[in-house]
Amino acid sequence: MPAGTEVVLTEVGPRDGLQNEPGVVATADKVTLVRRLAAAGLREIEATSFVSPKWIPALADADDVARALPRVPGVRYGALVPNLAGWERFRAAGLDVAAVFVSASETHNRRNVNCSVAESLERFRPVLDAAREAGVRTRAYVSTACGCPYEGGVAEGAVARLAGALVALGVDEISLGDTIGVGYPAQVRALVEAVAGEVPLSGIALHLHDTYGRALANVQAGFDAGIRRFDASLGGLGGCPYAPGASGNVATEDVVDLFERAGVATGVDLDALVDVSAWLEREVLHRRLPGRVLRARLGERERAAAARTTT
Amino acid sequence: MPAGTEVVLTEVGPRDGLQNEPGVVATADKVTLVRRLAAAGLREIEATSFVSPKWIPALADADDVARALPRVPGVRYGALVPNLAGWERFRAAGLDVAAVFVSASETHNRRNVNCSVAESLERFRPVLDAAREAGVRTRAYVSTACGCPYEGGVAEGAVARLAGALVALGVDEISLGDTIGVGYPAQVRALVEAVAGEVPLSGIALHLHDTYGRALANVQAGFDAGIRRFDASLGGLGGCPYAPGASGNVATEDVVDLFERAGVATGVDLDALVDVSAWLEREVLHRRLPGRVLRARLGERERAAAARTTT
Repeated sequence: MPAGTEVVLTEVGPRDGLQNEPGVVATADKVTLVRRLAAAGLREIEATSFVSPKWIPALADADDVARALPRVPGVRYGALVPNLAGWERFRAAGLDVAAVFVSASETHNRRNVNCSVAESLERFRPVLDAAREAGVRTRAYVSTACGCPYEGGVAEGAVARLAGALVALGVDEISLGDTIGVGYPAQVRALVEAVAGEVPLSGIALHLHDTYGRALANVQAGFDAGIRRFDASLGGLGGCPYAPGASGNVATEDVVDLFERAGVATGVDLDALVDVSAWLEREVLHRRLPGRVLRARLGERERAAAARTTT
Repeated sequence: MPAGTEVVLTEVGPRDGLQNEPGVVATADKVTLVRRLAAAGLREIEATSFVSPKWIPALADADDVARALPRVPGVRYGALVPNLAGWERFRAAGLDVAAVFVSASETHNRRNVNCSVAESLERFRPVLDAAREAGVRTRAYVSTACGCPYEGGVAEGAVARLAGALVALGVDEISLGDTIGVGYPAQVRALVEAVAGEVPLSGIALHLHDTYGRALANVQAGFDAGIRRFDASLGGLGGCPYAPGASGNVATEDVVDLFERAGVATGVDLDALVDVSAWLEREVLHRRLPGRVLRARLGERERAAAARTTT
């Protein structure tokens, strides 16, 4: 890879990870989490979600979290904004990136938000208009971009057309989500090529899940196809802890190490990030996170500590 | 990927996986394991090791295992053969592929087998001569090919020269091992290119560990560079269960799913392989294996069974 290459990671753990946590995470811990992620070098952090607390009770304190976030130069905070009611909360909190979300497959969209894809786009329109007027950056998540749990295969052309429609509505960045982790490298390359026909490469991010262990292989495939923006979740936080085998976002540490080893800058201090995940595991969630680099690094630290003790 | 493309997987679980198991696995269970792996479609199976039982007590029953293996047309059984004493045991057992092993880094080789790399090659010479005379296929493992836990970086050129020396000694297949899992895709591509200057691509296999979650990304990189032979271990069996974060071979199920999704034939029946790993977990090892596709598939089966029960 050429020297000087950089990637931008969007940390989605505080939103996409914590929204699935079964226990209550204190508002203060959520704020601490985002603050520490920014201190570790993450520059795009999805902090919470302004969907209805009825849908996602775990993020019912979104307004409190958002208002308590420390402003850090160069750091943008994002949040999900499903409709104009969410937009008002987003604006009151003064965050930076408003994210809408829609599925590439009709059945998944209907099961997720109880309306068609076309109806979702119409719901976004006033949010995106308001964001443009306010000079607020927007992103759109396109779920099931590599496959749908209800419909099976999803055509790359359909994803590309949806991405194009979102850009036409004013979205600044499209995050293509492999929601169920079925994608494979050749598919990701083909998907990126198809979507790049509608959206500039710099406006495309990949949001890859690790259900079958292929998230990093797919990150690499996306990078090879020209993508420089990737979503990730600290420690691999996310997925559903109740469903054995169900797995969430690719771990931020794993993405950082993949790139930094190859000389691609992420801007993230990996040791500091491991500290954040270790704190989250031990002090907040009281369970192990699935990230591989996190586990390997903590194992190295334990062995180094044991060696110091015995000598 | 072009239609009709095939890869050959060498299943190393019965040797590389079980040699690290802390508990005693019954000889009959080892034989059953190999038999079921062959029935699932694996055509190259490393069944055991003829190193001294003093070194690897877990495989002290190598002679009994090897003699009990059912002959299956088209299936080759391999074993580690460190010296002429091991060769005699290998021949008595009538196996098909004799494997020698050496590290790409001097320090790792010395710590592993207490001699220099050059001395290792001299020890192999009579084994490889005897194998050639007997018409027995040989492979050589080159460990630490992407990095050494003691020396750090390992130069691709050094690995290529060692591979060339092994081929000059008569080795049929070189298995390049990323023993500590530090490799990344661009490095694997460069390594393959370097070694391919000394060894035909068809004589190179990749043996990738998943310590940092990059094994599948590296498998894909190797494939993209022309490699068609990969080592893997059912369920990701291997590594050291006592060292948190230490991780072993890439899981065979994960490699099979990576390739089959992309239309590359492995010859392996994934459902049958998941059955083998599930049996090994539940009936033999009494612990969970780390393979991702295994966990996902077993989760799908549980949910399907629950759905049948409730309807």
